[in-house]
Order: sequence, then C-alpha cells, then structure tokens
Amino acid sequence: MHRAIGVFDSGIGGLTVLAALRRKLPKERFIYFGDTARVPYGTKSPITVRRYSLQNTQFLMRFDLKMIVVACNTATAAGLDVVSQAASLPVVGVIEPGARRAVADCPADGAIGIVGTESTIASRSYYRAIRNLGCRNEIWERACPLLVPLVEEGRSVADPIVRAAVGEYLEPVKGRISSLVLGCTHYPLLKEALADFMGPQVSLVDSAEEVASDVLQMLERQQLMAPDGSAGGLRCYVSDNPDRFRAIGERFMQGETLRDVTLVEPDDFFLNEHPAICRTEQLNTTS
Amino acid sequence: MHRAIGVFDSGIGGLTVLAALRRKLPKERFIYFGDTARVPYGTKSPITVRRYSLQNTQFLMRFDLKMIVVACNTATAAGLDVVSQAASLPVVGVIEPGARRAVADCPADGAIGIVGTESTIASRSYYRAIRNLGCRNEIWERACPLLVPLVEEGRSVADPIVRAAVGEYLEPVKGRISSLVLGCTHYPLLKEALADFMGPQVSLVDSAEEVASDVLQMLERQQLMAPDGSAGGLRCYVSDNPDRFRAIGERFMQGETLRDVTLVEPDDFFLNEHPAICRTEQLNTTS
Repeated sequence: MHRAIGVFDSGIGGLTVLAALRRKLPKERFIYFGDTARVPYGTKSPITVRRYSLQNTQFLMRFDLKMIVVACNTATAAGLDVVSQAASLPVVGVIEPGARRAVADCPADGAIGIVGTESTIASRSYYRAIRNLGCRNEIWERACPLLVPLVEEGRSVADPIVRAAVGEYLEPVKGRISSLVLGCTHYPLLKEALADFMGPQVSLVDSAEEVASDVLQMLERQQLMAPDGSAGGLRCYVSDNPDRFRAIGERFMQGETLRDVTLVEPDDFFLNEHPAICRTEQLNTTS
Repeated sequence: MHRAIGVFDSGIGGLTVLAALRRKLPKERFIYFGDTARVPYGTKSPITVRRYSLQNTQFLMRFDLKMIVVACNTATAAGLDVVSQAASLPVVGVIEPGARRAVADCPADGAIGIVGTESTIASRSYYRAIRNLGCRNEIWERACPLLVPLVEEGRSVADPIVRAAVGEYLEPVKGRISSLVLGCTHYPLLKEALADFMGPQVSLVDSAEEVASDVLQMLERQQLMAPDGSAGGLRCYVSDNPDRFRAIGERFMQGETLRDVTLVEPDDFFLNEHPAICRTEQLNTTS
C-alpha cells in the first residue's frame, strides 16, 4: 500500500481543502483528522492552537504518511512550524498558497482584502505572507467571527442573516478591493453570498485549489505520487461526534459521502506531551 | 480562611451565574474555572462534555471547597452526576433551579418555552426536569446555536443581526407561551432583545437568581455560611486566553472587574484521567 497524505483541521472546515485534494489527486490515499472535541480554533490563543496542532500531528504520525496538509488557517498561522518540526515530513499549510494566488490575481493598482477568524486575522499571517512575496499593494484585514457558526448551522447563502453578516463585515471595502482572500476554510461555502455582495469585479481567493496544486507539484518533484492504477481512498478520524461530522461535513465535500469516520478515543489522543517547541517563549507571532 | 465555593463553566457564560452568586453571597469566596481552551460545549457530544466536566471538577478540587456550582447548562445536562461523584461535596447545577422557577411562574393553562444550545436541547434535560416537578403543561424546545457567538462577539441587543436571529428562532412560539426558559448562561445578555420580541406578557426565566437562592439555602441548612465579617472574594482560572476572558467577561459580571484571572497550564490541567464513571455505557441521556 502506498503511503497516505495526512490532513488535519480544527473540525469540519478543512473538508473544503480535502475535497480539492481528492479532485486533483484521485489516486492518493488521505487520512483526515478533525479535532471536533476542541473546535473552534479561531477564538483560541496561538499557544493553545500550537499545542493542539502538535497533538493532531502526533496522532496523524501513527499512520504511514508521506506528507501533512494543515487544512486550517488558524492552525497554519499559529502552528505550521510546530507541525513541520514534529512530523519530519513535507508539510503544506493553507496561507502561503492563498497569499500567492492573491498576489498573482492582484492588478498593479489593486487592493487585497483578507477575511478570517479572530485568531488568523490577529496573527497577521496573510499580511506577512503577501508582503514576503514582494507585494506592496494596499491590504485590508477583517475578522468575521459570525461566519463559521453561520456555516456550521447549515444556513444557505440566501439566508437573510448570512446576507446581513456578510454585508456588515464587508461594507467598509465594497468597491475598494480587487480580490478577497477567504482566509478560513469554512468561507468557500459562503462564496456565492460574498460574490453577490462584492460584485463580479472582485476575485475571491480560495486556498483549497492552490493547496491542491502545491501538493501535486511537491509529490511530483519528490517522486512521491501514488502509482498509476491506485484506487485512492479516504479515512476520517474525529475527536468527538462522528455523526455530526458526517452530517455537516458532506456539504463541505460537495457530494462525496463521508463513509469511513472513526471516533478517536481520548485516551489514545490526548497524549499529554508538550515538548519545548510548543512553549510561549518560542512563539513567533506578532499579535 | 473559610472554604470557598467552586464554580465552573465552558468559558465565559457562567459569569452570569457567578454575578448572581456574588450579589446574593457577598461574604463567600469563589473560585471560578472557565474552560476557554475547549469552549464551546454546546456543540459537543454528551460523552465529551462529561469528560470535560470531570476534569474541571478535578481541577477545582485542588482548592479547599465546600460546594461546587456547575454554571453551564450543557455541562449540567450531560455531566452533573459525574461532578457529584467526583467531588464528594454538595453540587448545584443550573437546570433544576431554572425548571422549578419556570413551573412556579407558569399559569395553569400556560405553555413553557425553552431555548438553549444544541447539546442542552438535544439532552431534553429541562423537559424532564419540568415533568419531574409534576408539570404537564405544553413544552416547546428550540436550539439557538447562533446566540452564543452573537453574545461573545459583543453585539448589543439593538444589533440588527441579534434582532433577526431572535425573531427567527422565536417566531414559531410568539403569542403561544407564557414563559421562556433561558437555558444557556449567555442568554441573559440578550434578555432585552428576547423580551422585546416576545412581549411583556412572557416571563423570562434566568437560572442565575434561582441558583444563587438554592446555594444560599443549602449553605444555611448545612451551616456552611462564611462567618459574619468575612470579606468574600473571587479568583478566576481559565484554560486559555485570560485577556480575552477578562475583556469579554466583564460585560457578564455587570460591572465587577475581573482582576484576578490566572491561566492554568495545560500540564496541570489535562490530567488524562478518564475513570469508569465517564464511559459511554454509563451515560444517562435520552438523545
């Protein structure tokens, strides 16, 4: 059996990234872990998100993996380095690919908007990633804490409360930005509402497709592709409530049924290991 | 030093109960624990909420306590028995006192409405508590998942999204119930919006005052009151983000400043103990 690609997220949102990976890489096997016992990460502190990211990585490392994808903006912002150190494998986060797409899409005189969770926005990770790519265009950032619960409650893009929240958060930049980075893996489910409000001239940047392209390139470069004729596959693990994960998750998978969802027993999961790489003084954040 | 009263909640909401306790029992010392690293509980499974409730109790039991108040509806619904077993102390939850008040307030031909988190409503704990009190009146229950994030985002009762959400959730029972149980400790912050929508003929039942009365009675009966002249006091502990807890929490305390807030280190807190009382087969829920 060829080695799998591990993917983790705070819960369900990362399934939008997984769906893109499954489409782009149908021969690959995926192990997805959703930390539904401690979701959401977006309101937690960076140090706590680092600790959770490390534990999620330790769980995934029980499988025979060739790569890890951190399919959560908050975990990428706070803990990508912890994951890389702990995994000793190629690791792909969602922020760098999204930032690259935003910069590529941005016209010379355009401004870039970024929306995300409280914690992702406070980390300023997208801002830094965009600046690191040499882009000096104007950047506007806004935390939109209500959007995740709206999506998880299963509200449609036509829902009046969804419309009101989108309008309220984005009103300040309507007509002022040329692209909007969806800095949270839940937000692609609100794409239509965001597009309707912002208008057709604003491009919406969803990291999922970029992440899938990056993973494909990395596998090719390192000759780690699953052999031709491989069937591919998906197994999901969650730290709580597999039924809820399955029910809400299928909307995120755009049609694919989540058959194989296993509850991870807490005794197996909460390893109570907090290596030095997770401590506050090593925390590289600016917020 | 006289013994303290331990109080725990999934995070910040329990501060509405703590505020009522502080007003009613100014001579008492309180130790409050908010599990902000794993908040919210309302979307988690009963077994996970039981495990968290047990761990919170184990943390509180490090202090010299005379009583524990479970200031969280979801934790009361799923884990009150676990807390009682683990604590070997008098334990007060928020559901029984709230149910008692609802029954006392309900006219002979009145109907009772209950709003709460997904998990509290699914547990049907209020329903059972009301029936156990011999009340046979009509009961209507509804989960309102958006209300907690709306409160935590700091939105005022005049906010249009708050008004829209309240209207949407309660429209089906407008004019049909005589009292509405606020089955979540966050909801007292939305009292005005709820009252405006439901009209003056509907009484809103907030467990906090009832809990404080119960605690007072229990202390008197067991002769556990703090001696006359005691100064009282409050120390708060959280599992994540003390600054966020302090900033958001003060709105819940109706004026009292949260000075003494300590972050509990994960190594101290995640004890990784899962005694048999927490296992699924012992779980006494109906949902």
